[in-house]
Amino acid sequence: MDKINGVVQKKYVDFDDFAAHENEIVTITGYVHRIREMTGFSFVLLRTARDVVQCIYAPEFSDYRWDDTITENSCVKVSGKVVASADAKGNKRYELQIHNVEVLSRPKEQSPIVINKKQLDNVPLDTNLNMRPLTLRNPRERAIFKIQEGIARGFRDFLSGQNFTEVRTPKIVFAGAEGGANIFKLDYFGKQVYLAQSPQFYKQALVGVYDRVFEIGPVFRAEHHDTSRHLNEYISMDFEMGYIDSFYDIMNMETGALKYIFALLRKEYPKELALLQVKMPEITEIPVIRFKDAKDIIVNKYKKKITDFNDFEPEEEQLMCKYAQEQFGSDFIFVTHYPSKKRPFYTMDDPADPEYTLSFDLLFRGMEITTGGQRIHDYDMQVEKMRSRGMKVEDFETYLMFHKYGAPPHGGLGLGLERLTMNLLGFKNVRYTTMFPRDINRVTP
Amino acid sequence: MDKINGVVQKKYVDFDDFAAHENEIVTITGYVHRIREMTGFSFVLLRTARDVVQCIYAPEFSDYRWDDTITENSCVKVSGKVVASADAKGNKRYELQIHNVEVLSRPKEQSPIVINKKQLDNVPLDTNLNMRPLTLRNPRERAIFKIQEGIARGFRDFLSGQNFTEVRTPKIVFAGAEGGANIFKLDYFGKQVYLAQSPQFYKQALVGVYDRVFEIGPVFRAEHHDTSRHLNEYISMDFEMGYIDSFYDIMNMETGALKYIFALLRKEYPKELALLQVKMPEITEIPVIRFKDAKDIIVNKYKKKITDFNDFEPEEEQLMCKYAQEQFGSDFIFVTHYPSKKRPFYTMDDPADPEYTLSFDLLFRGMEITTGGQRIHDYDMQVEKMRSRGMKVEDFETYLMFHKYGAPPHGGLGLGLERLTMNLLGFKNVRYTTMFPRDINRVTP
Repeated sequence: MDKINGVVQKKYVDFDDFAAHENEIVTITGYVHRIREMTGFSFVLLRTARDVVQCIYAPEFSDYRWDDTITENSCVKVSGKVVASADAKGNKRYELQIHNVEVLSRPKEQSPIVINKKQLDNVPLDTNLNMRPLTLRNPRERAIFKIQEGIARGFRDFLSGQNFTEVRTPKIVFAGAEGGANIFKLDYFGKQVYLAQSPQFYKQALVGVYDRVFEIGPVFRAEHHDTSRHLNEYISMDFEMGYIDSFYDIMNMETGALKYIFALLRKEYPKELALLQVKMPEITEIPVIRFKDAKDIIVNKYKKKITDFNDFEPEEEQLMCKYAQEQFGSDFIFVTHYPSKKRPFYTMDDPADPEYTLSFDLLFRGMEITTGGQRIHDYDMQVEKMRSRGMKVEDFETYLMFHKYGAPPHGGLGLGLERLTMNLLGFKNVRYTTMFPRDINRVTP
Repeated sequence: MDKINGVVQKKYVDFDDFAAHENEIVTITGYVHRIREMTGFSFVLLRTARDVVQCIYAPEFSDYRWDDTITENSCVKVSGKVVASADAKGNKRYELQIHNVEVLSRPKEQSPIVINKKQLDNVPLDTNLNMRPLTLRNPRERAIFKIQEGIARGFRDFLSGQNFTEVRTPKIVFAGAEGGANIFKLDYFGKQVYLAQSPQFYKQALVGVYDRVFEIGPVFRAEHHDTSRHLNEYISMDFEMGYIDSFYDIMNMETGALKYIFALLRKEYPKELALLQVKMPEITEIPVIRFKDAKDIIVNKYKKKITDFNDFEPEEEQLMCKYAQEQFGSDFIFVTHYPSKKRPFYTMDDPADPEYTLSFDLLFRGMEITTGGQRIHDYDMQVEKMRSRGMKVEDFETYLMFHKYGAPPHGGLGLGLERLTMNLLGFKNVRYTTMFPRDINRVTP
């Protein structure tokens, strides 16, 4: 009888380890990315998990004779000798002199679009998205989501180090946390339920269990409008923490997380940052401005007429980011004390001026990426606010158990992963930084 | 103007650090878990994020006079002196002599069920689940999900160390990956779409991008039956890897992951393991048996009549686990080569006997926790298998892009997080190891 011992042997060598194998024979696997025939030899670029490795075929390297039926997007196993050479700038790099090629599989058809250049040239966004299983193979495209992995990883690692517990809360829910019409309804064995707009109710309940919790997971918004910054399904990075002194604790924790994330990207994802030519933000301090004061600046400094007194318009977010950059050299700015009217029912009003709230948004390079703040922890206060908004309190009985049976002062935030990636990498449409975006017109691939 | 620098200061001391603060004054926060009045002093048990800390109130410790209105489930800030004492077994432990108590919040009502004993005594499962925001505060209940956090963390950390990329794929999908009727339908702006039964299509496509990927995320199954082992929403830990030599590579990777997970739990979650009295499995090797041979053993050794020749019944899974335990002292057993009929359309048939597949289940303590195997990578082979099953190939155009434009030999698996937790901790119903379970009768809290 066979037995499995779980000792994973490394069968193939990573490109990153080529230096340690100089002049040795190694085997690597990957897709044939591009073949360039020269006089007397060929360059065979092999696309491995994270690199494009230059291999060279020439008859003098071995008895192996190149198989002309090998096309791009064939999967192969290549063995050969690691040799050092120099790139155009004279930097040392490694390439592989091919000794043998074993074809593992061949594509049925050739790619209808060019994916084996540094970036997808002249490919319209819609085509890019329609062909995702193919276009994501482009080195620049896949680097976007490798960086996205790093952002989520940094958020998680930082919070874990701050004694946050990672939780996973249900996405099929009995009530929406954000209210409004933009909620997906679902027939659940004859009962109407919803897709979670946020993990809000659950993460609050779990503050009563673990003090500090976070979740990185999908949320669903039935947005009817088709903009460059909205998605109908996106990844929300949420945290919620108890025993805060004020919502400044939340902003500080987020700032710490962002610093950590950017340091992690620099350390662990330098190849992808270079490939995408990312201009990394430097955070020393993030300025904080009140909503009211921000509106004053918009009127007085930027001479814009205010039409919405309770929220920002996209152009106003851009102006505040311009202001942060000009005045403080900061890519980020916290705006605090948003009007109560535009904030959800669980937001704590400012006792000093209850028309405003103990809440904030974080703006980054022209756009809101976070909404957060202190929440109501007192049962009576929460019930009263719900009633004042015409909500049926009895529908929220299980939500209110947290308040009824004791809740510490607490608050938290949600940070949109795709939007943060978009603004970090300088894209103008969030679909570029979403692997398989869902919008009002798209549910495929 | 305020500025936020993101330097997170530790305001309170963790119980784990009490030893370093012996005879010092520290401040901690938490819920009043239980108050026991003795003659001349009181024990005040404080429930912190991960511990229950014994605090002692006595008039001689300070000028602070106990506030009799403080009830259980009040949130407090307690300062006092860390002192060493001994528990019933003579082991050194630390407690806090109370110098001051600040009440941060009070519950509206007293808890209708006793949550401040080591475990929830005599609370029916349904009541436990109905009152989750409260019952999860019980030390034993919350320990379950702390361990669950550790399992997911171990899975992730192990695979990250094996060059897997973490991905997050959409949960609103255009087609079901597993077929069958147990799929939730959703109205998406007038179009019928589905909730993902698994990330199968996406993780295969992403093997073409990153070679190796994993995802830990929710999946949805519209199971109409109400059993102790099924949920309608659960967390699936999935991975998919390219350039495999056979599906044994998948089983080996899973075995490595499980070993890593159990080692991590022992190292980082000893308190929770002790509280739940977990009997940890020891993995050296996991035996492997073919489905056909397993059925023979069930007939010949256990004298059970076979009624389903294409799959296991729950009792048969139990018998195979008994067999693994008796013959090999193993809590786990891999069963391989399941009949093709009962496996999804993307499973690769065994070239040596196409009635069977290059697939496996992993059984653990009486129950299947994983289904995995090698997938078809050849376009024509995949199309033919879909046609033979009466599937409309044109509905899967974007799925088949992966195969059409080149796919390496690959395979993967899905591991149910709640089921693994359940069998590890010895529960008889998966709802005990699900924070907020969804079943045919339950979508709350």
